[in-house]
Amino acid sequence: MSDPDGRLDAQMTFLGEAEKLRTVLRATPIGDGSRPENSGEHSWHLALYALVLAEHAPAGVAIDRVIRMLLIHDIVEIDAGDVPIYAQTAEGQALTDAAEQAAAARIFGLLPDDQAEEMLALWQEFEAAETPDAVFAKSLDRFQPPNLNLASGGGSWTTYSVTFDVLDQRVGRPVRRGAPALWDWIAPKIRAFLG
Amino acid sequence: MSDPDGRLDAQMTFLGEAEKLRTVLRATPIGDGSRPENSGEHSWHLALYALVLAEHAPAGVAIDRVIRMLLIHDIVEIDAGDVPIYAQTAEGQALTDAAEQAAAARIFGLLPDDQAEEMLALWQEFEAAETPDAVFAKSLDRFQPPNLNLASGGGSWTTYSVTFDVLDQRVGRPVRRGAPALWDWIAPKIRAFLG
Ligand SMILES: [Ca+2]
Repeated sequence: MSDPDGRLDAQMTFLGEAEKLRTVLRATPIGDGSRPENSGEHSWHLALYALVLAEHAPAGVAIDRVIRMLLIHDIVEIDAGDVPIYAQTAEGQALTDAAEQAAAARIFGLLPDDQAEEMLALWQEFEAAETPDAVFAKSLDRFQPPNLNLASGGGSWTTYSVTFDVLDQRVGRPVRRGAPALWDWIAPKIRAFLG
Repeated sequence: MSDPDGRLDAQMTFLGEAEKLRTVLRATPIGDGSRPENSGEHSWHLALYALVLAEHAPAGVAIDRVIRMLLIHDIVEIDAGDVPIYAQTAEGQALTDAAEQAAAARIFGLLPDDQAEEMLALWQEFEAAETPDAVFAKSLDRFQPPNLNLASGGGSWTTYSVTFDVLDQRVGRPVRRGAPALWDWIAPKIRAFLG
């Protein structure tokens, strides 16, 4: 018997479930504007952002932990869906948080216990956005969509009639918090686009 | 000026180019069989395989290096396309290799010189499949598609009328080389499916 304690069975069940993340569609289109981005490929692109933009992270950030975080950060959307940042409301947020906590328990719970705990802790660290690794990961998660909107000619900004002030609050603030150099780079481009 | 030496401009140009990897379609469908997998989301799923299946790697494998390798391993396909493993021929391989080397030079060359060198070296290490990290990364790259074919009910095995012997040569051998426990787990499932 090749997997006497069932660990590999559990790991493969998790990987088969996680795979569904690519059927979750986001509000942001891919760069050529031809279709919405899905949350699986979004997670890949963000991990690549972390790898390439590591030098713009504050001192003390462990980039390989950031990459791990970004690989799993959206997996809860398999159950809870993606709530576009410009569609979020204070009342809606409490419901989303509850749905995401339940999703995390169910999906990471497919793993062997030790790994389930480890993944759940990593996801909760990301969500809490308090440690340097999580703050940087969150800033990349906010920084990537504007780049796609600029590439595709509007994207979710057009869908939600976004103004610079709203964007500055929902996107600028978290990007500045974890990666000020990235905000300084993109802010003039966004301002020029939104007018 | 926010990017006096142009490093961030170069990094963002690379990330905007790399993003096109998700428009490259593979022979393997996603798990629900509804559409082909793209190479961007494939890279994400493989990185997640590495994270979750790390304990099945041979001693001495540095899993965070494997993850980095898997995040960039297919980027050359933006120029060179994906050649399905069951469509590969000896003559075709030389052409593919040349196209991929040129693609790697062009695409990684968009990065600042130090990063271009580093990424090119990591990609070449993966391609050469000699170091323990690269051997394990390659074995995951071969192990994931059979799982999707089993989930979707045939996938690329049906397209290419694949027999167990052909699969054992093109998939079994590299999986056994880097991750024998994964091959022992999946081989009976494949044999039962292919009959
Ligand atoms: Ca999200």
